[in-house]
Amino acid sequence: MEKNIGRVNGIDLTVLEETIGAIRKDPALGACRFRARNRWLGGTRNCSTISSFHGAGQEMAHAEPFLLNADEPAVLAGGDKAANPVEHLLNALAGCITTSMVAHAAVHGIAIDELESELEGDIDLRGFLGLDPAVPRGYTAIRVKFRVKTAPKTLSC
Amino acid sequence: MEKNIGRVNGIDLTVLEETIGAIRKDPALGACRFRARNRWLGGTRNCSTISSFHGAGQEMAHAEPFLLNADEPAVLAGGDKAANPVEHLLNALAGCITTSMVAHAAVHGIAIDELESELEGDIDLRGFLGLDPAVPRGYTAIRVKFRVKTAPKTLSC
Repeated sequence: MEKNIGRVNGIDLTVLEETIGAIRKDPALGACRFRARNRWLGGTRNCSTISSFHGAGQEMAHAEPFLLNADEPAVLAGGDKAANPVEHLLNALAGCITTSMVAHAAVHGIAIDELESELEGDIDLRGFLGLDPAVPRGYTAIRVKFRVKTAPKTLSC
Repeated sequence: MEKNIGRVNGIDLTVLEETIGAIRKDPALGACRFRARNRWLGGTRNCSTISSFHGAGQEMAHAEPFLLNADEPAVLAGGDKAANPVEHLLNALAGCITTSMVAHAAVHGIAIDELESELEGDIDLRGFLGLDPAVPRGYTAIRVKFRVKTAPKTLSC
């Protein structure tokens, strides 16, 4: 099966096809465990370390540990030194959709030139602060807008 | 109402009480909109910018824009330059629980010395890769372990 071998959207389809092929042969290789260790730094600050995961049937270390900091803005009694956890959630969602879109497009031979998104979520602090039990604590809505520019040459393929 | 004024767990309860008092008076002030702008950087890399939010009835700019990078490890056809989106999700969850725990403890006068957590989530890549429609695409389980060390003096309060 030689299809899709090459690089589309900057993604090495040879690697992706190898991973897919290996999981097809042995479905147990698809089982991943991702991890984060978090430490409170005082006040509204905390930091996660992302250093290893389980994938392809083995423990894997990242090239380096990735540190992700969280804080709260002044109005929420923080020092505003980093994005807050609900902003981190929007980032996770944005990254997930972006990578999925690019990878799936690559597999289908669709070249993407540019891909941008804007995410906005609604939270009523009365929930988090426990001021009204009828108000949800988390996001009640998240709006996602994507702008995708595909390469004209792919339209004629 | 003079209770809880001061600083517990590094959180300025005066600020928190002011926010709570303002939202009690005018519940519309509890409505927040948090945002992320994301840009694809090629391959499995993308970056979110967190720069402003709506809170307390007004637009607010963060002290500086916060940049959050995502990538994928080599086995997922990436360059392993940053945490991947599902690891970012674990970080968001860790930060959310940590900040909530510390803030609620502070309001109740419970002093925390140390707070650490470990999160681990299960994803079967057969879902994301579309190899089996019966397999969910996202996490099927997330385990969260917290280690909390409270200050002995709070036990006798």
